[in-house]
Amino acid sequence: MLRTDAFQARFETALAEIAAVVGPEHVVHASDEVEKRARDIIPRAYEPVAFVYPGSQADVVALVKLANRFDLPLWPVSKGKNWGYGGATPARQGALVMVLERLDRIVTVDSEMAYAVVEPGVTFRQLHRHLEDQRIPLWLDCTDGPADGSVMGNSLERGVGETDYGDHFGNICGLEVVLPDGLVARTGGGPFEGYKSWNTYKWGVGPYLEGLFSQGNYGIVTKMGVWLMPKPEYFLSCVFELHREEDFTALIDAMRRLQLGGAIKSKVHIVNDVVTFAVVAESKDILGGEKSLSDARRADLRKQFNIAPWSFAAGLYGTRAQVQANVAVIRRELGPLGKLQFIDDRKVDLIKTMTKALRKGAAFGPTRVVAERFSRRALGKPLAFLEMIPHVHAIEKGYPSDYFVKHAYYKSRRPKPADDDIDPGRDQCGLIWLGPMVPLNGREMTRVLDLVRPLYKKYSLDFTAALIIGNPRTVIALMSVFYDKQDADETRRAEELYFEMGEVTQRAGYQQYRTSTIYMDRILAPAPEFLELCNRIKRALDPRGILAPGKYGIDATPRAPEN
Amino acid sequence: MLRTDAFQARFETALAEIAAVVGPEHVVHASDEVEKRARDIIPRAYEPVAFVYPGSQADVVALVKLANRFDLPLWPVSKGKNWGYGGATPARQGALVMVLERLDRIVTVDSEMAYAVVEPGVTFRQLHRHLEDQRIPLWLDCTDGPADGSVMGNSLERGVGETDYGDHFGNICGLEVVLPDGLVARTGGGPFEGYKSWNTYKWGVGPYLEGLFSQGNYGIVTKMGVWLMPKPEYFLSCVFELHREEDFTALIDAMRRLQLGGAIKSKVHIVNDVVTFAVVAESKDILGGEKSLSDARRADLRKQFNIAPWSFAAGLYGTRAQVQANVAVIRRELGPLGKLQFIDDRKVDLIKTMTKALRKGAAFGPTRVVAERFSRRALGKPLAFLEMIPHVHAIEKGYPSDYFVKHAYYKSRRPKPADDDIDPGRDQCGLIWLGPMVPLNGREMTRVLDLVRPLYKKYSLDFTAALIIGNPRTVIALMSVFYDKQDADETRRAEELYFEMGEVTQRAGYQQYRTSTIYMDRILAPAPEFLELCNRIKRALDPRGILAPGKYGIDATPRAPEN
Repeated sequence: MLRTDAFQARFETALAEIAAVVGPEHVVHASDEVEKRARDIIPRAYEPVAFVYPGSQADVVALVKLANRFDLPLWPVSKGKNWGYGGATPARQGALVMVLERLDRIVTVDSEMAYAVVEPGVTFRQLHRHLEDQRIPLWLDCTDGPADGSVMGNSLERGVGETDYGDHFGNICGLEVVLPDGLVARTGGGPFEGYKSWNTYKWGVGPYLEGLFSQGNYGIVTKMGVWLMPKPEYFLSCVFELHREEDFTALIDAMRRLQLGGAIKSKVHIVNDVVTFAVVAESKDILGGEKSLSDARRADLRKQFNIAPWSFAAGLYGTRAQVQANVAVIRRELGPLGKLQFIDDRKVDLIKTMTKALRKGAAFGPTRVVAERFSRRALGKPLAFLEMIPHVHAIEKGYPSDYFVKHAYYKSRRPKPADDDIDPGRDQCGLIWLGPMVPLNGREMTRVLDLVRPLYKKYSLDFTAALIIGNPRTVIALMSVFYDKQDADETRRAEELYFEMGEVTQRAGYQQYRTSTIYMDRILAPAPEFLELCNRIKRALDPRGILAPGKYGIDATPRAPEN
Repeated sequence: MLRTDAFQARFETALAEIAAVVGPEHVVHASDEVEKRARDIIPRAYEPVAFVYPGSQADVVALVKLANRFDLPLWPVSKGKNWGYGGATPARQGALVMVLERLDRIVTVDSEMAYAVVEPGVTFRQLHRHLEDQRIPLWLDCTDGPADGSVMGNSLERGVGETDYGDHFGNICGLEVVLPDGLVARTGGGPFEGYKSWNTYKWGVGPYLEGLFSQGNYGIVTKMGVWLMPKPEYFLSCVFELHREEDFTALIDAMRRLQLGGAIKSKVHIVNDVVTFAVVAESKDILGGEKSLSDARRADLRKQFNIAPWSFAAGLYGTRAQVQANVAVIRRELGPLGKLQFIDDRKVDLIKTMTKALRKGAAFGPTRVVAERFSRRALGKPLAFLEMIPHVHAIEKGYPSDYFVKHAYYKSRRPKPADDDIDPGRDQCGLIWLGPMVPLNGREMTRVLDLVRPLYKKYSLDFTAALIIGNPRTVIALMSVFYDKQDADETRRAEELYFEMGEVTQRAGYQQYRTSTIYMDRILAPAPEFLELCNRIKRALDPRGILAPGKYGIDATPRAPEN
């Protein structure tokens, strides 16, 4: 965007009017403060001009009207914690970021019908606490991302969680939306108030339009229904470790059968060794002073930590008999391929007690070695790995925490902060994600890994993948590009790897399930007719293009070149 | 639409051009032929001006371009078997009905990933036969409607089937669409060809737009992916009969728990006594010469036929242990409320053999009485009821048939035709459906029944309901209005009951899940902001309003008054 004087004057008038709407304390445009709030962990990002924090739906309506008058591009985010995809940054230079975190009411929880209605600022932690505090026997589904992330933001960006309710977009029902001209509508085709099935029947009547507001730029959602899981009678978590890399294809095919047959319905993340290293160990202990892992060191670390090439956790929910029937199918399918463990609440308590005692002992110099040795010899795993188990168990029950976010520090030069002080943006971690969608079948999945593995080698970065089962027929092959943000060359290589990996997989037919703000202009390039359809709708609903221009490449007018 | 001479001349030119595109043999405009093809079973309908049968996607593209040139409203249908909702008739007088039944290829069946890609003309019967003939171990989900109905048509109208895959819109994935200006696009945001997850990942990337083409008028779908169920290792059907009307609320609440907990995932239809009477008996035997059922006669018939006030069938799929674990939960929840029967393939064969033998005996005059008596005494049910069991069992396995369509003949003056000759349109049956969405909870469901029951009484028509569990939180309370189409007064009363029942339930907050062509102008009235959003999109995608004007009340321009 060209910063002419005329622009500057207009922008300042707009800011003054915005301050009059939301209160001056809720507008931030000092450049250092803007920079701090815009920090994400991707290699580069577009810069916002200011941050604004509306306090109500009425504020949001006023802001879009104002944006239309001033031709001011708004970039709405719920909490702005979209780490690894661009955080709170826009898809084009110069947008004004509208953070909706002050709209943070839990509007309804219907414990009988098992859903909640939330505003954009409601976080996983907040909703979870509310259910606990009110003793409502419902479990939410959270992600392994930040506990202070927005339930709505993640759902609309089509994030995937952990449990049977992990398809977050699939489990939302009923949206209230501020359209780009300020009209407030609800989806579902029923009356605005008193529509009995607004939050129970996803498709409503008439065209199903909620999809427009997911990965789109057609409106600002201010209320959202989300389905919750009734607390099951019985629960087990299941941990699997693949013995031999050669059985990877067989594992993927077994997972498809388990998912299609319903024995595992939770949104399994099959992670490779580096993901596990990055969660349980400090960077220096993994890399040993090098910039990346050699094959030999990687193999050595696997042995040293006793970590499998691929492993996953799953949650099993139901009556005891239902869960046991599923356990039997899982044993039949996966038993021959690796190590299976089923963990109940009692067992988790035991692990917690034991690891706490060992950790206490380890605090005293020489005992550390003894404790670690005991853990490895008697229990087969390093202490840090055992300490991970209760977190795995908890997340399958919908307990949000920042525990798993720690792995963003893999290439960071500073040691990991305490579990309650994780902030990859503040700490300038380096991580960007690329998630191609792959049919859940061993042949296809192997093909995609064969495409990306050599690229990681080419750029001297460590191949890191979490294969997230998005539905019984699809795996989201989430590739992490970890890099050292303080190393300019590595940052450049990370970006190159990211884009090349995106192009290579797209060209082979594996489109991404979601993308970062710096990929959005390319993401729909393979689908020009689809993009044309999106743009036609954009022109109809937002003719001045004030709402999130460039989101997923969608624009009201052909894009002006950037400066 | 005013039929001026100018209109007539333009229309004739258009028809000649259409004939040049599709071949004259695929254009029907003789009024008697048009009338015959437009016949549905609802009390009145809008009249099409002609029928056209394109033979390819290219024909469809040519036709929409032509329609734009001639300002000719097109009303696309797949097979036109949308019985009880308007069949092949449009939502406005004078549209040209485009029947897509010549596009009838099964494009793909992927037996590993468990999906098919079909064109609009592919029927449930055709897809089922294909799977059987090719010995593909996949089961489809069909409806209890016509076997020659379109898989695509039913899915896009958001029909609900029978099995765990019964949410038909929820189980489609990947559409190819002709937009109103002739642009051909695919949903999902991937490349047109070679997009690996097109038919496996429902949400694709970018805004999720498939919902636009469901109960909408934004495009003509020419290809559709549909997920199929891998043949399970074990299958049981389950039949439940409620003992006491007083336990109805408890039944509905139990069903919610069973659905939320996953013990029953199939799309259960809880039907009242009249539905069962209408399936198993001839009209004259039910009504006994009267125009409608008195309470006393109704009670007497229940006793005579030994039919419960409410009953349902469900399908249970999985390994034997998974099914048995679900059976245990079902017994616990429903055992106290009524009679439960679990039926496997062996038991069904036995029933078939026995009923066939009894029926054979019954052919000989006096033996009929003996056979019927044996059936009732020894087996507890009339012979016709026992004969229904194998059909119930089969439909839960995805066997399409017209068996259940027979109940449309309830008020017909002619006896039911043979099972392979059912045609309610041809036979001038009278039936219109109204399906309010109700949260799946006993209190709400009872409230809705309390609203509609007195209305049936008011219009002297028989209260008939199938409560279809659309998802674990919602029941579609499908009210049937049966009437005698040869009785003008009763036809008028049927229409009045239909509209009053619609208004009363809408006003109470129970919007319909789908509606008939004669209700479409009213259906979105309670949601003016939503309708405005729909209309804005309509203007963008179809500025001349040539595609299905008035579908779900959506129009490019404010509606001209009708003549």
